[in-house]
Amino acid sequence: MEPLLMDLSNNLFLEDTCLVMIDRRKLPREVARVVCRNYEDVARAIENMVIQGAGDIAVTAGFGLYLAALENDPAVILKAAERLKRTRPTGFHLAALVDKLLGAAFREGPPAPAILSFLQNIMAKQRALSEATGTNAEKLLADGDTILTHCFPGAALLFMLKAAKENGKEVKVICSETRPYLQGARLTAWSVSCLGIDTSLITDNMAAHFMSIGKINKVFTAADRIAMDGSAANKIGTLQLAICARYFRLPFYILGYGGADKGTEKGSDIPIEERNPSEVLEFLGTPISGPDVKAMYPAFDVTPPELITAIITSKGIIRKE
Amino acid sequence: MEPLLMDLSNNLFLEDTCLVMIDRRKLPREVARVVCRNYEDVARAIENMVIQGAGDIAVTAGFGLYLAALENDPAVILKAAERLKRTRPTGFHLAALVDKLLGAAFREGPPAPAILSFLQNIMAKQRALSEATGTNAEKLLADGDTILTHCFPGAALLFMLKAAKENGKEVKVICSETRPYLQGARLTAWSVSCLGIDTSLITDNMAAHFMSIGKINKVFTAADRIAMDGSAANKIGTLQLAICARYFRLPFYILGYGGADKGTEKGSDIPIEERNPSEVLEFLGTPISGPDVKAMYPAFDVTPPELITAIITSKGIIRKE
Repeated sequence: MEPLLMDLSNNLFLEDTCLVMIDRRKLPREVARVVCRNYEDVARAIENMVIQGAGDIAVTAGFGLYLAALENDPAVILKAAERLKRTRPTGFHLAALVDKLLGAAFREGPPAPAILSFLQNIMAKQRALSEATGTNAEKLLADGDTILTHCFPGAALLFMLKAAKENGKEVKVICSETRPYLQGARLTAWSVSCLGIDTSLITDNMAAHFMSIGKINKVFTAADRIAMDGSAANKIGTLQLAICARYFRLPFYILGYGGADKGTEKGSDIPIEERNPSEVLEFLGTPISGPDVKAMYPAFDVTPPELITAIITSKGIIRKE
Repeated sequence: MEPLLMDLSNNLFLEDTCLVMIDRRKLPREVARVVCRNYEDVARAIENMVIQGAGDIAVTAGFGLYLAALENDPAVILKAAERLKRTRPTGFHLAALVDKLLGAAFREGPPAPAILSFLQNIMAKQRALSEATGTNAEKLLADGDTILTHCFPGAALLFMLKAAKENGKEVKVICSETRPYLQGARLTAWSVSCLGIDTSLITDNMAAHFMSIGKINKVFTAADRIAMDGSAANKIGTLQLAICARYFRLPFYILGYGGADKGTEKGSDIPIEERNPSEVLEFLGTPISGPDVKAMYPAFDVTPPELITAIITSKGIIRKE
């Protein structure tokens, strides 16, 4: 069975003048729909992690702009663009796509159909980008590998694993649960297991142990933004996996899809989103610490280029010199 | 207010012929009692994490042996000793203490009073050991430090922080939540905040990020067993913190209490307890992944001596040559 998250159009689509999303916070226990009637609904859904992943939130924001464009008022479209661009700062795709859609909207003719046609084109391209990235990454896999992954690296990971299976390579996957939202447990482990691949879940603190006893031999994550110096911002926890991989001399690969953001020179230029610390003080809604305890919740970290063995894009495998 | 967990006698005591434990799995939300009527109850409580920590489970097992000894049948005492020693294998204190108590029980006179007197003596010694370890460790703290700790390192951490405060050093504490049992969130962060110290909770995947931006400058954990080669087995996740500390050139300290186990030559000789993987696949009874996903749950990992800056015991600070 193709995993639900292997194609964005399975879990993000229009119904009349509403945008429907499958709520990723509830997967896999429940396939629940969130219906957004206007761009503000879409902005909040992005902020509240109904949908996640740099590429997917970009397209979602694009649909938010489309809903705004249905009002046929340039001022509303511009206001929506500003609102949507403020939702999540670390990935660069969202702001870049909204800007491109503004260009399309104001070129000629009515803005809404122009935005929709652009978006449909982008979604098809995104699937092709994921598949090409996965196909390239599959070349790095050998029969018998056990790979570690973190958070939900998107469809490229699933295309990579599907291709490996089709090529007769037996690959096992270990997923770190990815606190506090548990994307690794809920999205990745579930999706990979839907491909009929041996999938194991670990907590975020177990990776080094399994590396130390030889149970992991390659690490693959995605990146929300790659800077021109080769630094990669990705879900919090990626940096420590890269450091541990280096300590145990294991390759650490980034599924880089479309590659670096030409507007971001170096890792320290990437804004790190700080989320509400209450999300760390609770576990699935239950408080887990004392009343006088504070918390911190940076949603991403930045892995420096010296810890990255290669970045795999839709065009090929980029290794350090 | 003295944190509940600063002294074992606050949360482990006899009532008539029963052993009462405060259930650490429910702290700090609820101060619930678990009443053990016989050694089998005690063994299960240890296995099920009603109580935790190498030193504390050792004393608890000792009380289990005391309950068995009340039956005044040497065969029951020996059977209880075997059962209790099988509960949790990674810490060496438990088996060592049970063996010592067997020696006391069979020396002369009725076994139960002999065991009880030995245990009361051990509890007083354990508090003194924690305080001396904390006092020694405090010398490593400087005004303005922010330390990271993992799991619940026991009373020595609290004595260290209390002493630092009394000596006018302002020290902040960051606690990693320590999945899957969340001892860092529930026990450590709560206990430290009870001392009136600035306490922040992070998920287990955030440590490297905070090191990378200079927000952590020292790491302190405990150890369930220290081998004679200086390797330290401690709660799963300790190894990756030590690797990250090394990468960022931060000191990594072990609160070693009574020091190494003379019977364990090297780190690879320490048995790593494998717990039920279902504890990783669910939280408070809620499944967090898909039905075909497996899990792994090693409860401890081993940090090699080259990553440990110093081991602090009740006698002093042991640094590598």
